[in-house]
Amino acid sequence: MSTTAQIGVTGLAVMGSNLARNFARNGYTVAVHNRTASRTHALVEEHGSEGDFIAAETAKEFVAALERPRRLVIMVKAGDPTDAVIQEFAPLLEPGDMIIDGGNAHFADTRRRERELREKGIHFVGTGISGGEEGALNGPSIMPGGSKESYDSLGPMLEKISAKAKDGAPCVTHVGADGAGHFVKMVHNGIEYADMQLIGEAYQLLRDVAGYSPAQIAEIFRTWNTGRLDSYLIEITAEVLSHVDAATGKPFVDVVVDQAEQKGTGRWTVQIALDLGVPVSGIAEAVFARSLSGHAALREASRGLAGPSATPLSEAEAGAFADRVEQALYASKIVSYTQGFHEIAAAREEYDWDIDLGAVSAIWRGGCIIRAAFLDRIRAAYDARADLPSLLSDETFAREIADAQDDWREVIVAATRQGVPTPGFSAALAYYDALRAERLPAALTQGQRDFFGAHTYRRTDRDGSFHTLWGGDRSEVGA
Amino acid sequence: MSTTAQIGVTGLAVMGSNLARNFARNGYTVAVHNRTASRTHALVEEHGSEGDFIAAETAKEFVAALERPRRLVIMVKAGDPTDAVIQEFAPLLEPGDMIIDGGNAHFADTRRRERELREKGIHFVGTGISGGEEGALNGPSIMPGGSKESYDSLGPMLEKISAKAKDGAPCVTHVGADGAGHFVKMVHNGIEYADMQLIGEAYQLLRDVAGYSPAQIAEIFRTWNTGRLDSYLIEITAEVLSHVDAATGKPFVDVVVDQAEQKGTGRWTVQIALDLGVPVSGIAEAVFARSLSGHAALREASRGLAGPSATPLSEAEAGAFADRVEQALYASKIVSYTQGFHEIAAAREEYDWDIDLGAVSAIWRGGCIIRAAFLDRIRAAYDARADLPSLLSDETFAREIADAQDDWREVIVAATRQGVPTPGFSAALAYYDALRAERLPAALTQGQRDFFGAHTYRRTDRDGSFHTLWGGDRSEVGA
Repeated sequence: MSTTAQIGVTGLAVMGSNLARNFARNGYTVAVHNRTASRTHALVEEHGSEGDFIAAETAKEFVAALERPRRLVIMVKAGDPTDAVIQEFAPLLEPGDMIIDGGNAHFADTRRRERELREKGIHFVGTGISGGEEGALNGPSIMPGGSKESYDSLGPMLEKISAKAKDGAPCVTHVGADGAGHFVKMVHNGIEYADMQLIGEAYQLLRDVAGYSPAQIAEIFRTWNTGRLDSYLIEITAEVLSHVDAATGKPFVDVVVDQAEQKGTGRWTVQIALDLGVPVSGIAEAVFARSLSGHAALREASRGLAGPSATPLSEAEAGAFADRVEQALYASKIVSYTQGFHEIAAAREEYDWDIDLGAVSAIWRGGCIIRAAFLDRIRAAYDARADLPSLLSDETFAREIADAQDDWREVIVAATRQGVPTPGFSAALAYYDALRAERLPAALTQGQRDFFGAHTYRRTDRDGSFHTLWGGDRSEVGA
Repeated sequence: MSTTAQIGVTGLAVMGSNLARNFARNGYTVAVHNRTASRTHALVEEHGSEGDFIAAETAKEFVAALERPRRLVIMVKAGDPTDAVIQEFAPLLEPGDMIIDGGNAHFADTRRRERELREKGIHFVGTGISGGEEGALNGPSIMPGGSKESYDSLGPMLEKISAKAKDGAPCVTHVGADGAGHFVKMVHNGIEYADMQLIGEAYQLLRDVAGYSPAQIAEIFRTWNTGRLDSYLIEITAEVLSHVDAATGKPFVDVVVDQAEQKGTGRWTVQIALDLGVPVSGIAEAVFARSLSGHAALREASRGLAGPSATPLSEAEAGAFADRVEQALYASKIVSYTQGFHEIAAAREEYDWDIDLGAVSAIWRGGCIIRAAFLDRIRAAYDARADLPSLLSDETFAREIADAQDDWREVIVAATRQGVPTPGFSAALAYYDALRAERLPAALTQGQRDFFGAHTYRRTDRDGSFHTLWGGDRSEVGA
């Protein structure tokens, strides 16, 4: 067996196979390995003509086939299987070699693995890969963490196989040390949840309040897709909504069970935001909306609860309302991304990562689910000012929200009065209004906490912590 | 040293000292112990006249002072200190003895500790204790988990020292096995966060939209406290709002920094709800609102963002608006409790706990922060129907929400138009409208997921999982 492979992929389920083929199609010699060798041979038989593969039957053969420093991509299930594969291969590697984990690992696991392998001189590169099976084959958005040194060696290869943005830039960058790549991938997914929820709310409003059919709404989304909402998700929404179910002749969306599933990264995004103290209410509402939809028995039991029914608008009013919904969707989207980038910025500080937020938005412009023209604007915002306190502080976004907000508010008013749930739109607006508020009722909260738990409070007019003797003469004491 | 103590308390900070005094005042002989013996002696010197204390200087003395089976209460910081104390005492105990952890432990830690100690025949009773320092001394709400056997021995003592509801019932029950007590205490705190947030929103609306002064709002809360909102938190809100700062002559609430703090149990409630797949959007918004308030720099940078200012109503309109706010607050409160009890019910199933939801609401009626007349209604709802799908399915609550909802919606409309953030009210309404919705946009979400990730969907008209060949001829295949 020759040691000529520039890269190796172990774990040849669809994602792993497609990634291996992507490397091979780009001119790299790829060692391939799988727990069951038959799959390895099947891959080479079926796709061997696409490039140079070296089929390895054993871990030893696989490692032996790799040029040094070795680049070993593992594409197995996140969690214990990843640890098992690392334990299998690490003893066969030498200092300077790299293990690239392309699975959906929790960033805390990635941090642990990176630390353990670093002690052996092995680079562990936790790498977010977005774009599903199709992206893995034809160009995903790639979010590698790990050491700068490993990126020097890996980067050029990843740039070659990655998606390219419309301006030709490869959708990959060195995100930051240890778990930074998987962290950013996680937030990407959280934002994806929020985007999908907001689109869902827009759809429901156009359906129930404006009275449009799915086919008509598909047309509206197609129009939106030519403007500032231009994005993959808006595009496929139009495709899904215009699809007619062959079996029944009904709109496809009407024959699908309305219970959304989830896999976990959206949930993690919220759980970790809570640890970091970052409000990500839009993402949380998206995750909760999916959970709620799945509680079939609870929903069934709640069907009779009182509430208004939406009365569709006249055709003339409907058109104007659709324009308002576009404004509401766009403004809410700005808030979702504001929250997501805030979470990344907070993690950057917490874990001392050197993350360039503009670069992150740039690599999401192609290959991944949330790819959108919008991300160019975010990059421009961070390029103009790297220390932007939040996306809402960017002049363009602030102006767009200023322009959108009357419509945004009126859409929520209509939803509120007509009983259409818009948790995402409403959470986004509440976040916006809370951020800009001169005073928040948090002062009252602090007063209550001091009352029942002597938790103390600060004063607006001097430094220090204070406590009021609520049970006594209500004088104030320093704390 | 005589072995005559019926109970022992180790860890004599304020909570531990007060709990020990509470036992002593109720006629029990209490062994007391602290890492530094000086504190032990100080307690006995200061409060020895309240009852029978046995001061123990060492762990061995402490254990020797306890009647068998021993009942040993540990009141130390949650986390590692709790494990350290357990490791110190467990070797000195014998099968049948009980360790009662009265700290704010994470229920997962309690489950682990219970499992480990059970192997040694020791009962570990993770116990939520609510009511702060004052409650510990004069009667807290007590939420013990652990074995039924340990409750047989401990229950009568806990009933004696606990708070009593207005009907005289002790605020303690055997919540359920292992971590059930700490779990329920955690959700109690999450609900407390939501209650406080909703009160804060009501206050802000009365201030900005109705144009009332803090003193006037205090009066409104006093009136509310005579009705269905009758509760400790409403009562102290009136106290805090009517308090005038002596140094400035201004309303106290106006001199407090409006940045709310938190300690962690609210956050846990949301994080665990996410794991359990239970939507607790009202609690989440309350936690996020506190985090948001604390981001001072971000708020400062956002002050200039465009938005309406509230225009206070006329005096005549203001009174009617205040009534509407009461309806909105009450309806939102029902939703918060619905979500919290849903979380407990989900955990009951997940961890196979035998929790009586009616009994849980009953023991929150006294001693704790969320004590309220309202909890009698919840108990009545579960007494009438133990398998209630959710509180919203209870006829009384459903009717009250039906009556409240026009006002609830109009309050949110006013907040939305006038730029007053009401994340809690809005999240509660969105939850309500989503639960009762005939169809949710989750069907579209499933269509999108099938489009970009072949995640499959179910059909409303037949069983099975399906996938549409979106990239092909768009025919449907079984999955």
